[in-house]
Amino acid sequence: MQRLKPSQGLSQLLLIRSQSSRISKGIIPLLSVWDGHLSSRWRSTGGHGGQKYFNNNGQKFRFALAGLLAGTGAVLAYKLHQSKVQWAASSAQLPVTSSPPVYTLEEVTKHRSLDNGVWVTYKGDVYDITEFVAMHPGGDKILLAAGGALEPYWALYAVHKEEHVLEILSEYKIGVLNPESIKRQESTDPLDPYSGEPSRHPALQINSLKPFNAEPPASVLADNYITPSAIFFKRNHLPVPKVDPETYRLEIEGLPGGVVSVTLSELKSRFPKHTITATLQCAGNRRSEMNKVKQVKGLNWGIAAISNATWSGASLREVLLHYGFTPEVAINAKHIQFEGLDKDVTGTAYGASINLNKALSEEGDVLLAYEMNGEDLPPDHGYPVRVVVPGVVGARNVKWLGRIVVSHEESKSHWQQNDYKGFSPGTDWDTVDFKSAPAIQELPIQSAITHPAEGSSVERGDEEVTIKGYAWSGGGREVVRVDVSVDGGNTWHVAKLHSSDLGRNPAPGRAWAWKLWEIDVPLPDGAQELEIVCKAVDNSYNTQPDTVGPIWNLRGVLSNAWHRVKVKVKDDQK
Amino acid sequence: MQRLKPSQGLSQLLLIRSQSSRISKGIIPLLSVWDGHLSSRWRSTGGHGGQKYFNNNGQKFRFALAGLLAGTGAVLAYKLHQSKVQWAASSAQLPVTSSPPVYTLEEVTKHRSLDNGVWVTYKGDVYDITEFVAMHPGGDKILLAAGGALEPYWALYAVHKEEHVLEILSEYKIGVLNPESIKRQESTDPLDPYSGEPSRHPALQINSLKPFNAEPPASVLADNYITPSAIFFKRNHLPVPKVDPETYRLEIEGLPGGVVSVTLSELKSRFPKHTITATLQCAGNRRSEMNKVKQVKGLNWGIAAISNATWSGASLREVLLHYGFTPEVAINAKHIQFEGLDKDVTGTAYGASINLNKALSEEGDVLLAYEMNGEDLPPDHGYPVRVVVPGVVGARNVKWLGRIVVSHEESKSHWQQNDYKGFSPGTDWDTVDFKSAPAIQELPIQSAITHPAEGSSVERGDEEVTIKGYAWSGGGREVVRVDVSVDGGNTWHVAKLHSSDLGRNPAPGRAWAWKLWEIDVPLPDGAQELEIVCKAVDNSYNTQPDTVGPIWNLRGVLSNAWHRVKVKVKDDQK
Repeated sequence: MQRLKPSQGLSQLLLIRSQSSRISKGIIPLLSVWDGHLSSRWRSTGGHGGQKYFNNNGQKFRFALAGLLAGTGAVLAYKLHQSKVQWAASSAQLPVTSSPPVYTLEEVTKHRSLDNGVWVTYKGDVYDITEFVAMHPGGDKILLAAGGALEPYWALYAVHKEEHVLEILSEYKIGVLNPESIKRQESTDPLDPYSGEPSRHPALQINSLKPFNAEPPASVLADNYITPSAIFFKRNHLPVPKVDPETYRLEIEGLPGGVVSVTLSELKSRFPKHTITATLQCAGNRRSEMNKVKQVKGLNWGIAAISNATWSGASLREVLLHYGFTPEVAINAKHIQFEGLDKDVTGTAYGASINLNKALSEEGDVLLAYEMNGEDLPPDHGYPVRVVVPGVVGARNVKWLGRIVVSHEESKSHWQQNDYKGFSPGTDWDTVDFKSAPAIQELPIQSAITHPAEGSSVERGDEEVTIKGYAWSGGGREVVRVDVSVDGGNTWHVAKLHSSDLGRNPAPGRAWAWKLWEIDVPLPDGAQELEIVCKAVDNSYNTQPDTVGPIWNLRGVLSNAWHRVKVKVKDDQK
Repeated sequence: MQRLKPSQGLSQLLLIRSQSSRISKGIIPLLSVWDGHLSSRWRSTGGHGGQKYFNNNGQKFRFALAGLLAGTGAVLAYKLHQSKVQWAASSAQLPVTSSPPVYTLEEVTKHRSLDNGVWVTYKGDVYDITEFVAMHPGGDKILLAAGGALEPYWALYAVHKEEHVLEILSEYKIGVLNPESIKRQESTDPLDPYSGEPSRHPALQINSLKPFNAEPPASVLADNYITPSAIFFKRNHLPVPKVDPETYRLEIEGLPGGVVSVTLSELKSRFPKHTITATLQCAGNRRSEMNKVKQVKGLNWGIAAISNATWSGASLREVLLHYGFTPEVAINAKHIQFEGLDKDVTGTAYGASINLNKALSEEGDVLLAYEMNGEDLPPDHGYPVRVVVPGVVGARNVKWLGRIVVSHEESKSHWQQNDYKGFSPGTDWDTVDFKSAPAIQELPIQSAITHPAEGSSVERGDEEVTIKGYAWSGGGREVVRVDVSVDGGNTWHVAKLHSSDLGRNPAPGRAWAWKLWEIDVPLPDGAQELEIVCKAVDNSYNTQPDTVGPIWNLRGVLSNAWHRVKVKVKDDQK
């Protein structure tokens, strides 16, 4: 991508385009070919126009453009669009309808691919954006919204909150949605314990509907250092409880003064509000890779059962000290148990516990959080109060927190005792003894590749491949390096790390948030396929194991081998 | 080893032998053959007797006996020996000399193998123990003393402090050592900065004499949960300084009250004495495995640049608080620097630093240690005072401690800034930027196999192979599992872990000591060779990488890939 890299090529391109409304053939040959096609078949009805073009040649140009445009703002797209409209107007007759056609949701839903056309809805209007897909500054990600509403996606990417974006969209309007279609989305079954579940972002890839377990598309995950709450992975064990903030009480047991009952407003007013940025990861993240070795029990998570958010709330340490925790209590107490308000049909609540010293340490940063990303916790993330135990497996970050117990023993819950533990690859369901392994608390070093996607292609002429991903380690250990290979691990390159507070190191032992990383690696001469591999190193110099097999375990947890993605290298078409 | 396992076979054997002074042919066929050989050529002169026997058949029986006897006390050896003397006396004529021959050290040194005879000295007497080697309860380890003095080895193994051991030895006396030989060992060169170095245990395998760097033989390392100080690995960067405990002063800088000077007796009397058991490991432990991938810079350590000891001294935290450390100091100070009294020719002292929060945390357990294994620190280990930073790389455990500086920056020393850091395998000496990597503090998860040795053999008829080793992780993370494979990592078995306080878990985050482990693994059907592999898991579920290549780095540090040992499976001779 030497010529077309955003850092060089795009500024050049903008300069050239400000001098001329036509794209210069000599400098951007790919775009010139593209323009020729567009101008000859612009704006046919129903989104089926350009169909033949896309089927035959579109794939290649889409990739070229996606590569060209990824990472830029909407300005360039707007300019491209404007030019296109001008050319279109001058070379073709636009059919005009007097009243807009009315579509049902079913009709819209059928149009979710370049082959069938890409339709979207926005504020009750229906748009056919098939031909805009290739110009979308965010690349192929626009296809996530295909067949449904744009709103949830635009909410993720602030760049759409610009007038010219609506102006672009208006050009693609083909009709309106009938009102019934919208209402139908809201219907629920009152007999289903899951009937009260909140609505979820349509981009989420659902691993289980009841209880709801879903992860964002891997391609979207590393777009934001702070994961928007709507696409933050959801890992529910039970139905989402409906909690009235007025009657909500947090009970605290095991302190010398007896049981304490705390209201939400007391929690907010009596204790300073602390904010941390912390990554949560499900113990089963990347379980699907273990399933490929040998079947395991559990949800088939991809690489995105991990997300990063800011969390605000009261310090658990301060709350416990306020209500009477003393060093004498610590002589017997060794654990802090948490119980959720989410219950199964027998009334058993979700439960977990953490070590007392994590909870009581000033550097532990354990929060009774009531805000996520600056807003009230969403229902899926534990409204009104959840525990955030930074550096510790998601399962201990109990949501819809109802009870805290200071205890000499761990939580007796199934999830603490007989789940969320690691075993040897040689241990099977006949031989497993859950007592023999410690409950997972801190997680090991982890990293994965979010771009490019498995099975995608790069052009040999691009000379480089841009690779992106995330890296994180448990226990507050800071990621200090990510090594990337494009030849399966024979040679390695060091990626550039990004975090929100670039240049400022987190306090030692308190690196709770992930780092995103990126690198441009030269394509090896003559390679037909790349095996892209990443592995991260934390500041205890722990690193990821090479392969999945030797860390395979019957529950499919702790899957942190090198992440591997295979990508084809395509020879340039002449 | 089903028939001959110590836990079953030996008690049987002892029972039988109490009924008869001859070994029963029917039950212990191997021993019977052995007896036959011994009785026909017992006690010829100069240790060359039995030579032919050992060359032809001895190897096999030595292995059988070493396997049989390993792990038992001296009682059985004594009984075997007694019986042997009786048989010998009844079947051969003993030559008797009136005055003992006198030998030089050179003559003794020549006899350090079964081929040339195994001679040892003890309190000025010379012994030819060639034929006792196979009966030694500690197996082949007796050969470590071959050609030299027994005293240092007997000091390691308390089991020799029994009268019957001397009785056995006396039977093998062949003469006395001339007095000059002993004195010569003590001579030194006053012009050599290393002339004042302490004497060292002869078992140590020396990687560098000046400065002195040495490790115990791997076969000995896991014999003791607490490594005897004499064979605790030595890693000196400079000559060992001679420190007078009367004039010794520890200077502390960077506290509000100005520089503090503390005497040894003040350190001992003003502060409570704390004792911890902590494993220290050199960053370069197992570097030799990296050297096999590609040459690195550094001492060619095997797997034994790691040892475990008890350490007693003042708490660094308590000392700093006593001399005026306050939370206000921590606003600017982030590091605690240490400076040794060991200096190079320019007067530059060894130096290193650790994070302030490690030093000040109650759970950090950082000691200003003046005792090792219950005695004054030996000269090689920092007499009179060293820092012990449990869970942290050896290099920060500064010996012969002269100065502590509370500072906002890390130590400026070469060893903190431009050494003891980890890099990507793709980084070479042309591209390395030492500023880009953090100084190693906590070390990653580690384990290695101490038994059997690379290149040794097991008998197919033994049916099982006994495998032993150590496992440890930095940062106080407890080792929770060791997986062992005998087929290169295809199938795995879980080893049994041993620690001194079995059954009692260390406090969370304060598991400073290693665990020794052991397992009997069935021999795979038809295997000609075993590739024995171990990997450990700590309670953050970090594990070791599969292979060395992808963690190779130009300094050869942090070598913690799976340890692999190849062992031949020999078919039983008929």
